[in-house]
Amino acid sequence: MLVRRLTTLRQVRLSSSIANHEPAGPSVKTPLPGPNEQALRKRMDNHFQTISMNMFVDFEKSFGNYMVDIDGNAFLDVYQQISTLPLGYNHPELVEFARSDPMITSTVSRAALGAFPRSDFPDAIEKALVSIAPKGLKNCQTMLCGASANEHAIKQAFIWYQTQKRGGKAPDDEYLTSCMEQKLPGTPNLTVLGFQGGYHGRTMATLSVTRCKTYQKVDIPAFQWPIAKYPRYKYPLAENKAYNDAQDKECLEDVELKIKEQKEKGHDVAVVIAEPIQSEGGDKYCSPQFAQGLRDITQKNGIVFLVDEVQTGGGATGDFWCHTHWNLSTPPDIVTFSKRMLTGGYYYADHLRMTEGMRIFNTWVGDPAKLLLLTKVVEIIKRDHLLEKNREVGKHFQSELSKLAAHHPNLLSTPRGMNTFAAIDLPNTEMQGKFTKACHLNGLHVERCGAQSLRFRPSLVYEKKHADLTIELLDKTAKQFEK
Amino acid sequence: MLVRRLTTLRQVRLSSSIANHEPAGPSVKTPLPGPNEQALRKRMDNHFQTISMNMFVDFEKSFGNYMVDIDGNAFLDVYQQISTLPLGYNHPELVEFARSDPMITSTVSRAALGAFPRSDFPDAIEKALVSIAPKGLKNCQTMLCGASANEHAIKQAFIWYQTQKRGGKAPDDEYLTSCMEQKLPGTPNLTVLGFQGGYHGRTMATLSVTRCKTYQKVDIPAFQWPIAKYPRYKYPLAENKAYNDAQDKECLEDVELKIKEQKEKGHDVAVVIAEPIQSEGGDKYCSPQFAQGLRDITQKNGIVFLVDEVQTGGGATGDFWCHTHWNLSTPPDIVTFSKRMLTGGYYYADHLRMTEGMRIFNTWVGDPAKLLLLTKVVEIIKRDHLLEKNREVGKHFQSELSKLAAHHPNLLSTPRGMNTFAAIDLPNTEMQGKFTKACHLNGLHVERCGAQSLRFRPSLVYEKKHADLTIELLDKTAKQFEK
Repeated sequence: MLVRRLTTLRQVRLSSSIANHEPAGPSVKTPLPGPNEQALRKRMDNHFQTISMNMFVDFEKSFGNYMVDIDGNAFLDVYQQISTLPLGYNHPELVEFARSDPMITSTVSRAALGAFPRSDFPDAIEKALVSIAPKGLKNCQTMLCGASANEHAIKQAFIWYQTQKRGGKAPDDEYLTSCMEQKLPGTPNLTVLGFQGGYHGRTMATLSVTRCKTYQKVDIPAFQWPIAKYPRYKYPLAENKAYNDAQDKECLEDVELKIKEQKEKGHDVAVVIAEPIQSEGGDKYCSPQFAQGLRDITQKNGIVFLVDEVQTGGGATGDFWCHTHWNLSTPPDIVTFSKRMLTGGYYYADHLRMTEGMRIFNTWVGDPAKLLLLTKVVEIIKRDHLLEKNREVGKHFQSELSKLAAHHPNLLSTPRGMNTFAAIDLPNTEMQGKFTKACHLNGLHVERCGAQSLRFRPSLVYEKKHADLTIELLDKTAKQFEK
Repeated sequence: MLVRRLTTLRQVRLSSSIANHEPAGPSVKTPLPGPNEQALRKRMDNHFQTISMNMFVDFEKSFGNYMVDIDGNAFLDVYQQISTLPLGYNHPELVEFARSDPMITSTVSRAALGAFPRSDFPDAIEKALVSIAPKGLKNCQTMLCGASANEHAIKQAFIWYQTQKRGGKAPDDEYLTSCMEQKLPGTPNLTVLGFQGGYHGRTMATLSVTRCKTYQKVDIPAFQWPIAKYPRYKYPLAENKAYNDAQDKECLEDVELKIKEQKEKGHDVAVVIAEPIQSEGGDKYCSPQFAQGLRDITQKNGIVFLVDEVQTGGGATGDFWCHTHWNLSTPPDIVTFSKRMLTGGYYYADHLRMTEGMRIFNTWVGDPAKLLLLTKVVEIIKRDHLLEKNREVGKHFQSELSKLAAHHPNLLSTPRGMNTFAAIDLPNTEMQGKFTKACHLNGLHVERCGAQSLRFRPSLVYEKKHADLTIELLDKTAKQFEK
């Protein structure tokens, strides 16, 4: 069925195709979870725990901005899996591209990209990654996901830091011998500085600089790496300038203090890792001046400034890279990505290039099929001016979200965002859960972040009519709570 | 071109197709690296460092046991990327399957499997994973790669260990509060015990129990987790029984000592992680009695026994799981996998099932396209009796490898292996490098492991004639060194 349907779409321009082939609108006909959902979940749970799952999706019927579950319920999906679909479900051009020979051989005979890359790998790197690289960063490294991107980016920063300490020299015998016993100097006491509320992944090192949810951290041993305060602004920003400026100052002072404390312990901070928007943490923003402060502090102390754009990158905020709007005096040293970039990886500055091989390496070093698919995604985004269109839709969405909050002042507050990357707050965690569930029943698939926020992460095929429908469904849901 | 060629193959049975469509034999016509290789490497190095790479591969021309580089050189490939291709290059049935609708939608609209799995996910789990599960382990968890499999498997073990300590209870407020400050009791001092020579991945936690190569570890901070001795046998095994038995005893005593030392420090060992064959470490084997000893010690101490089958699993050794031949009195608690399983992940025992959601979780929790492809791989392996055939070929290969070593006693020693998963030693690291390069020039793509070994990791479409050709090329290479 999919074949027939999509084949007829091949000649259709994107702008019309989404409109023509999505369901007419959301429609939830069963209780949630529906009967098929319950039965299949029971079956799966015999072998694969279902306690964390949300719902089974019918990926053959999901299209554009609409996700269809296995009970036939259709949701307007402003979460797009976990903010991982850059162009919505089953984009016809991507479906066609996925059937091409390079995609098929990439899938069947997966290259170990670090050792035996495909002959089209350099071209794919140039098209998919270099062509949209953040200003000032022309080197890149692919990885499999956001956590592995952060793990290896941090490792590359550590290698640079230690190489600097050695005056640019490769590790000598003393280093090589001691590292196998995990002793100094081969195994250094270097640390990474993270932030309260930050999220960088679920591996043990990335969890050590994550301070988001308790269930992510409890019972898991961690590196004792320092954590500094991240700004907590009052909204609307313009009306709370003095308070917010003071937040920036206080947090930057805390960063400097933590760096000093670590140095005194002989545990140099080699990396500062920060998100432009703390996304899992509840869409907490930081100002350009705070970011510039971080850039200044890291530069002054010879520390690598790593900007984690796993959730904000790849066009999510109306730019390919959210940190662009900081207008930093010098670029970050590393920018990590994943999610709607399809492949994990990172960009890095020239001075971080390594002189010895095999130090940043693993079996697959990413996935060629994901990188190739990204070349097509980037081509479509550029050709169809999707970022420009997204900014138009985003401006409208932000304005409507503010009006919505004003209409429901006891329920909804602090509308905020960058274009369609947006959030709004509920009064507390309990209401956050209830409101999210009620939205689902009304056909809007939205998700939570932080302790009391709803997050919006639509793809780049989200148009004005989808934004209007989102607001309509939120309004309908809010009214149900106010009855 | 690929389309036409493979389309005509669709009806051909596997057993004949490989023979019919591979190149007639190896052929190296250019110096290595060849001119195309050098030019493309120069181009790629502008943006993606090439210091770790081996060669660019023409994946459209590679087939079965043969890898073709971008200079048109064809190699008999007994390494199969990094032991990651279960059925060789471009298996015709996998090519056909990759074009099916579920594979296409999985690729274009990738499910976040932990939250929004595909409707065919339970079926794929049953076919691809449960149907080949190690005896006694019926639960599974998908992940992206071997390192993330080990990371999350260890985390799940930690969660179980702490839950046991709490008498089965979920973490209370004291735990939840303290974990966000990385203090006791929420952030425990638990440790993982690894082995000298072991390899478990390149993330920082898995590196902490890795003791393989210095370049993997130097300059990278690590968890101070204990390391015990792993047996170092003398070969031939039968002639060195007393020595090897003493090795087992000494190493098991060391494990017990390390567990005791950690306990005294308040750093309980919660997990023992071991490979059935230390593969990156140089194909170092351990005996069934050593493994049974580990099982006994872990059971006695309430420690999770994690068997890392990332390199040995998925049919590499002639069984789906290498540890099967241990015939343990009770199964391991966890078995991790990746590489030729296409997807990362792990099997685990019932008692490790969790009662709270979202604790083992990340954005993608694997990759649906890889899991679906594995269903087809498993179907083909079973239908065509490829493990049984592999054991036949393996018996022959082991016998020929022993004869080869006997013919070149000054160059080659310690032939060993399980069926086609095999290794042989060179006199030292320098000769290991030179011999490997000479093999490449003779058209045999073989790779190194450990300080002085060559490893053989052919796929399951490796037949007797390929084994004979491998021996012939090794013999030819050895003779060049003996001139």
